[in-house]
Amino acid sequence: MPHIRLPDHLPGITGPLAFRPETAKPLGELAEFLLRGPNTLTSAERETIAAFVSNLNECRFCHASHRAAAAHHMDGDYAAVDAAICDYRGAPISEKLKALLAIAAKVAGDARQVTAADVDEARRHGATDTEIHDAVLIAAAFCMYNRYVDGLATWTPNDPGLYDQMGRRLAHEGYAGSRD
Amino acid sequence: MPHIRLPDHLPGITGPLAFRPETAKPLGELAEFLLRGPNTLTSAERETIAAFVSNLNECRFCHASHRAAAAHHMDGDYAAVDAAICDYRGAPISEKLKALLAIAAKVAGDARQVTAADVDEARRHGATDTEIHDAVLIAAAFCMYNRYVDGLATWTPNDPGLYDQMGRRLAHEGYAGSRD
Repeated sequence: MPHIRLPDHLPGITGPLAFRPETAKPLGELAEFLLRGPNTLTSAERETIAAFVSNLNECRFCHASHRAAAAHHMDGDYAAVDAAICDYRGAPISEKLKALLAIAAKVAGDARQVTAADVDEARRHGATDTEIHDAVLIAAAFCMYNRYVDGLATWTPNDPGLYDQMGRRLAHEGYAGSRD
Repeated sequence: MPHIRLPDHLPGITGPLAFRPETAKPLGELAEFLLRGPNTLTSAERETIAAFVSNLNECRFCHASHRAAAAHHMDGDYAAVDAAICDYRGAPISEKLKALLAIAAKVAGDARQVTAADVDEARRHGATDTEIHDAVLIAAAFCMYNRYVDGLATWTPNDPGLYDQMGRRLAHEGYAGSRD
């Protein structure tokens, strides 16, 4: 049961977003820009970073919903997303995304551990300063969203079909609904 | 040296905010509302939560700047802020704020560890659902801001006078500048 009286039947972050529209607006705008805004990183790559960090933080709701969003940016290819989340070094993803996930993992732990060598590795595989910035901020932002969802003990549904629907909606319609 | 080429001479978070105005806007709006928006928690209390979490995350820049902002909401009383940050249980602060700081500490660690008993304790001392929500979100948001600042290895000045000026400006003028 959630720690505060949230609107009924709203899973995960959607409960506190509905409870507090004043903060829902910037939280929704940040997610919309970071995950779906114009970017040289694809939305599939950015949602993969979000799902990866959420998994590290063991936030079941965010992991499941952003895993589904990433998959829906890749024609529903859940296996590709899971490979990146579970073992990115061995996954069939670009070397650039591997280097950005390595940085994201450090940001999720102790961000001071990100080294110049980590960043050089990303650059060596073509990452721009903006891409490095965005990977760091996506990882940092999910350290917020994950804690927001779990710190309030929001409802985490178990039905995989629900996450699949949610992921499809996030991928194709986005996070704008959170703003209103 | 920062990991990416940030505008010169901008300390801490102000570098990446200037680098990426698209994300500066929601990040600034979130801080402005959480720390200075209409609220039954005072801005001093909310900045104390921000400084407290930044100290737990060992983010020197955010700790120093929000410590100063909290002090400037209390006529420059740094001793009061430091007492709350260093030993909140023994500090001369309200029992409500103590209970909210206890929740914030758990959010900064593993947010799933926040218990119904922690929340009941805050309620027993008068905390409303909105105050509990906001304390959780402030703590979660600083887990993001701290990682953003440190994950990019932004410039952390040493001069205490600079943080005092910054705190005064944040307390009296706010975070709106971050939006433009």
